[in-house]
Amino acid sequence: MNATSGATQQAIELIRERLGDRVSTNPAILEHHGHDESWHQGIPPDAVCFVRSIEEVSHIAATCSRLNIPLIPFGTGTGMEGHVVAVHGGISVDLSAMNEILDVNTEDFDCTVQAGVTRNQLNEHLRSTGLFFSVDPGADASIGGMAATRASGTNTVRYGTMRENVLRMKVVLADGRVITTAGRARKSAAGYDLTHLFVGSEGTLGIIVEVTVKLHGVPAAISAASVCFDGIDNAVQAVIMTMQSNIPMARIELLDGAQMAAINRYSRTDYAEKPTLFVEFHGSESAVSEQAAAFGEICSEHAGSAFAWTANTEERSTMWQARHNAAYAAMAVRPGARVLATDVCVPISRLAECIQQTRLDVERSCTLTTMLAGHVGDGNFHLVFILDPDSEEDFEQMQALYGRLIGRALAMDGTCSGEHGIGIGKRRYLVDEFGRDALDVMLSIKDALDPMGIMNPGKKLPAR
Amino acid sequence: MNATSGATQQAIELIRERLGDRVSTNPAILEHHGHDESWHQGIPPDAVCFVRSIEEVSHIAATCSRLNIPLIPFGTGTGMEGHVVAVHGGISVDLSAMNEILDVNTEDFDCTVQAGVTRNQLNEHLRSTGLFFSVDPGADASIGGMAATRASGTNTVRYGTMRENVLRMKVVLADGRVITTAGRARKSAAGYDLTHLFVGSEGTLGIIVEVTVKLHGVPAAISAASVCFDGIDNAVQAVIMTMQSNIPMARIELLDGAQMAAINRYSRTDYAEKPTLFVEFHGSESAVSEQAAAFGEICSEHAGSAFAWTANTEERSTMWQARHNAAYAAMAVRPGARVLATDVCVPISRLAECIQQTRLDVERSCTLTTMLAGHVGDGNFHLVFILDPDSEEDFEQMQALYGRLIGRALAMDGTCSGEHGIGIGKRRYLVDEFGRDALDVMLSIKDALDPMGIMNPGKKLPAR
Repeated sequence: MNATSGATQQAIELIRERLGDRVSTNPAILEHHGHDESWHQGIPPDAVCFVRSIEEVSHIAATCSRLNIPLIPFGTGTGMEGHVVAVHGGISVDLSAMNEILDVNTEDFDCTVQAGVTRNQLNEHLRSTGLFFSVDPGADASIGGMAATRASGTNTVRYGTMRENVLRMKVVLADGRVITTAGRARKSAAGYDLTHLFVGSEGTLGIIVEVTVKLHGVPAAISAASVCFDGIDNAVQAVIMTMQSNIPMARIELLDGAQMAAINRYSRTDYAEKPTLFVEFHGSESAVSEQAAAFGEICSEHAGSAFAWTANTEERSTMWQARHNAAYAAMAVRPGARVLATDVCVPISRLAECIQQTRLDVERSCTLTTMLAGHVGDGNFHLVFILDPDSEEDFEQMQALYGRLIGRALAMDGTCSGEHGIGIGKRRYLVDEFGRDALDVMLSIKDALDPMGIMNPGKKLPAR
Repeated sequence: MNATSGATQQAIELIRERLGDRVSTNPAILEHHGHDESWHQGIPPDAVCFVRSIEEVSHIAATCSRLNIPLIPFGTGTGMEGHVVAVHGGISVDLSAMNEILDVNTEDFDCTVQAGVTRNQLNEHLRSTGLFFSVDPGADASIGGMAATRASGTNTVRYGTMRENVLRMKVVLADGRVITTAGRARKSAAGYDLTHLFVGSEGTLGIIVEVTVKLHGVPAAISAASVCFDGIDNAVQAVIMTMQSNIPMARIELLDGAQMAAINRYSRTDYAEKPTLFVEFHGSESAVSEQAAAFGEICSEHAGSAFAWTANTEERSTMWQARHNAAYAAMAVRPGARVLATDVCVPISRLAECIQQTRLDVERSCTLTTMLAGHVGDGNFHLVFILDPDSEEDFEQMQALYGRLIGRALAMDGTCSGEHGIGIGKRRYLVDEFGRDALDVMLSIKDALDPMGIMNPGKKLPAR
């Protein structure tokens, strides 16, 4: 742990004057706020502030700005890239008590929530409206955290990521000023696009305190299925052909045999432990059955088998819950193991090649347990490594393979992160992904908005 | 015209060393490049450079940066807010000869074009692929210009604006550096979102030289219709009910009686000269007929009449061509008149109220000829004024009404520009739309990327 400096102590006292006992330095609470669900080593902050209003966040930022103390936003702690690790100490701003749903505009298909509202909480609230919020990472993350990391999930192929689903935000800047990024109109050609600048900024430009998201109509009919394949290549080819046949899938997920075995054990399901697609169609009754039939044909052409249409809502929700828990299932394979998920995303035309080369690379060079799960309709897949936490050799094997995987994805015009963000671990890959000049533009924006560098330092961008 | 300064003269000479006679100071060419299709008074640049490569644009920017000379990108000159007017003189960079389609990835539903490629040119090129580029402002604008102004058009309600359809860009920065904003993957959580920062930046942050856009599959079936109403309120209510019934329209356009009369005269059509909706559905045969039937019922409930489904491709294209030419039709109503189109956009739930209050305002306070056309599925409409160019009084009436219209839209959480951009004339409204602090963030980004302020000065943002 960092020794808490005099300036930090002073900041804590000043914030306490306003928040009282909602400022904590309890070691267990600090420890909890210093790590997420990723493999990254936790580092606790110097204090945690449990905020209840935008004014409080603004007061904290103004104070930290004056005293040059790092500020780290905290939602549910379910990040995958160490976003909340207090690498330079500082103040963790816990937004979980800012969990009010402020406004649901059913006529406009949007709603405004405080940053601490979670995706399940929101969908529970929307249940009677005939509308839903679509973005669904595995965890029950906060909407603010999902906006900050540009999160996505299983139905991005149809409804988009947070990038497409955030309409506007309120953000507290480094010096405590509060801005609203946009109006609530569906389109606008006014101003620079601040909304998209803050979506995915990982707390490094400001703290997101309020989010207006788009909602979608619950479809009249939903049809879902699982289908398995003897080889992973056949499964990927079936996905690509479905995409290219212009069949509008709502979800299309790939899981390899090892991941299916982990799911069976964790979620007590009995799927075939072979490469599997989970798929779902949304639309009118007739549209959905047209789509399902067309997809069935494509799977048959690619030797799909054990085709199982889920007959009802419970079966469907069991299947998707199993999918959402895939990361937890991987972590449970070897308790105490270090679990690391890669996150590359490539153009769909390169997906089969990328997965195939990666599997060959794993077979050739790696003795680690791995599994694969992916939002293949987006070209995004996670290769998951299960590591012995005490083995330096395991870690080095993984690092080398991970580096080659990212290199491969970038050579295919892809990205080192489809949805988990950059956090601590992937900053080094950004020069290769964007080039020095584009990275310098990003750094100059960072400098303009956060001249002292107090906003979640050590994350998102490499140092100059 | 500005007197060309010594530094400008020097810049022109330096650029001529590289571009030769593709640098023009011919008065007719200067005049042509100093105005667009809007009512804004033209001001010619000091020179026009007809560029052929990114390297040339980079060379020009580096030269102008060294000598502190304004740079103004020029696509087709079809802008609506005076974006190309050389308010501080300088060099116009005409990108129309950079019109190569570089790469069509049918498997990935995307393609990469040079900035000067126009939307019709691109769709012509795509004709045999089964794919199309969806964004369709009235004019045959360049893709670079459309990206720069965050343009949209008639099928935004289904396929989105340029904001949703640009995947990445190459941009020449103020000092001549060339950056690529992103990879070609469909989603990414890496880096700040430079793509969206440059989309809609109107040449004030850099010159867009290459754009990768999303493509969409040509639908299996298309069904289109026109339907007219006795009152404009009924038409708007029919649109809102269709939106809220979750019927996926591809296009839904409102035109008032005066606009229909102008269209009939300009396009030699014989529509009823009453408030009219033009609508289109895309999908499978069965989906389209379901949607069309549901829409027909909603129109009947709102006293829609003269319901006419277009039977074939020619009829449909006549109808949409008439719609795309609506602005030209308005300009032709009184030759020599000054025509001004407003561009507010509001949340759909406020649209009926916004249009109604605006019509009352026009009736009460205005003796001018007006007409109304709008992309009502987006909440966006254009009130068009036909002014006597010599009448100060006409202009003042329009200005007052325009100001009230924008105030009304902003009070409804809307925007002063749905798709035309800010350009010269609307900069004053941005403080009201975004607030001082958000505007200061935009200005600090502008300063970071263009410290000398040479990129299309006098546009997009107010002076500090």
